[in-house]
Amino acid sequence: MTTLLEKLEWRYAAKKLDSNQAVSAEKVDFILEAIRLSATSSGLQPYQVIVVTNPELKAQIKPNAWDQSQITDCSHLLVFAAWDNYTAERINMMFDLVNEERGFINEGWENYRQMLLHNYPQRDAETNYQHAARQAYIGLGTALVAAAELKVDCTPMEGFDPAKVDEILGLSKLGLRSVILLPLGYRAAEGDWLVNLKKVRRPREQFIIEMK
Amino acid sequence: MTTLLEKLEWRYAAKKLDSNQAVSAEKVDFILEAIRLSATSSGLQPYQVIVVTNPELKAQIKPNAWDQSQITDCSHLLVFAAWDNYTAERINMMFDLVNEERGFINEGWENYRQMLLHNYPQRDAETNYQHAARQAYIGLGTALVAAAELKVDCTPMEGFDPAKVDEILGLSKLGLRSVILLPLGYRAAEGDWLVNLKKVRRPREQFIIEMK
Repeated sequence: MTTLLEKLEWRYAAKKLDSNQAVSAEKVDFILEAIRLSATSSGLQPYQVIVVTNPELKAQIKPNAWDQSQITDCSHLLVFAAWDNYTAERINMMFDLVNEERGFINEGWENYRQMLLHNYPQRDAETNYQHAARQAYIGLGTALVAAAELKVDCTPMEGFDPAKVDEILGLSKLGLRSVILLPLGYRAAEGDWLVNLKKVRRPREQFIIEMK
Repeated sequence: MTTLLEKLEWRYAAKKLDSNQAVSAEKVDFILEAIRLSATSSGLQPYQVIVVTNPELKAQIKPNAWDQSQITDCSHLLVFAAWDNYTAERINMMFDLVNEERGFINEGWENYRQMLLHNYPQRDAETNYQHAARQAYIGLGTALVAAAELKVDCTPMEGFDPAKVDEILGLSKLGLRSVILLPLGYRAAEGDWLVNLKKVRRPREQFIIEMK
């Protein structure tokens, strides 16, 4: 088993996936479970993950994502889709679930619920969506580690038309807005310009600031 | 060694850290390195991580973060701070570094640089900051896994006054805006209301949507 740092060194944004190699259901489930367990602000999990395997849907998305080949070559296209707003109903749903699962009602937790109910639904939908979308990026960070742990390749993509993808997948009626695409698959033997290039990051001294 | 899912089950947002237990420099370095290796949009790494160990700075931040005790009880307070804007200088800095590290100039990569130079600096600073801040959340997702791998506790915090923290740490003059706080430490033996409560997530069928 490799350490996390080796996994992070191994991974890269695959530019060409092998359309003949599918990720097993077991591995996809592992990645989805890692996302599901990821932290979110106040534990609200304000997003969902759509797993698109339908070839027609993938084909419709591709031209709306700069024609990137991974969209149709992947076996599973994950779409992270954030809540379009924080509503009282959604907040209560998660707080009720927490109480039910823990088997008791905690006063501090109930006060916290009231604070969120007082603040979130009153904000404009765009502010709430932006906040929800950020949480999806925590899940994305986890997904990249999970895929690397399984030696599954993937390509995080922001380069797509969210309104079009929402329309293709019918997300608006679910109260969701697409945030990130993550095709899962295996790197193709040929045709990937990035695979052999060095991973470049700023050196530690240009990325970390110590205040002692 | 535990699998990623076990690490994610183990971790939680520690509510009370033991102020007598410091995380070793080696472990902090591992977590920082994991963040540094994390993916970002176009590889720009549009954020930095401030490691605050100075007790006076931590004490100044605490009242601006809902008086959460982890701020001063932690041994290392990580502050994820995003670029306040995408400038041509910053974009060129990263593209030049990539060319230098890879030892050659790639035409496709140069075209991509021009596309970013054409689009990003023209957008308003707030839009660019919001985009940069999202990337920091990928790093946060990685950091939570890295800390769990080392059995280090931590508490992701959005509940603070970013303008005040920026002022205390002098981030504005560095072109940075604070996004998330992440105190690192070890859970206290007593005084943590959350430590023994069940981690609650929506069941898979309420979080994942399959489109076959």
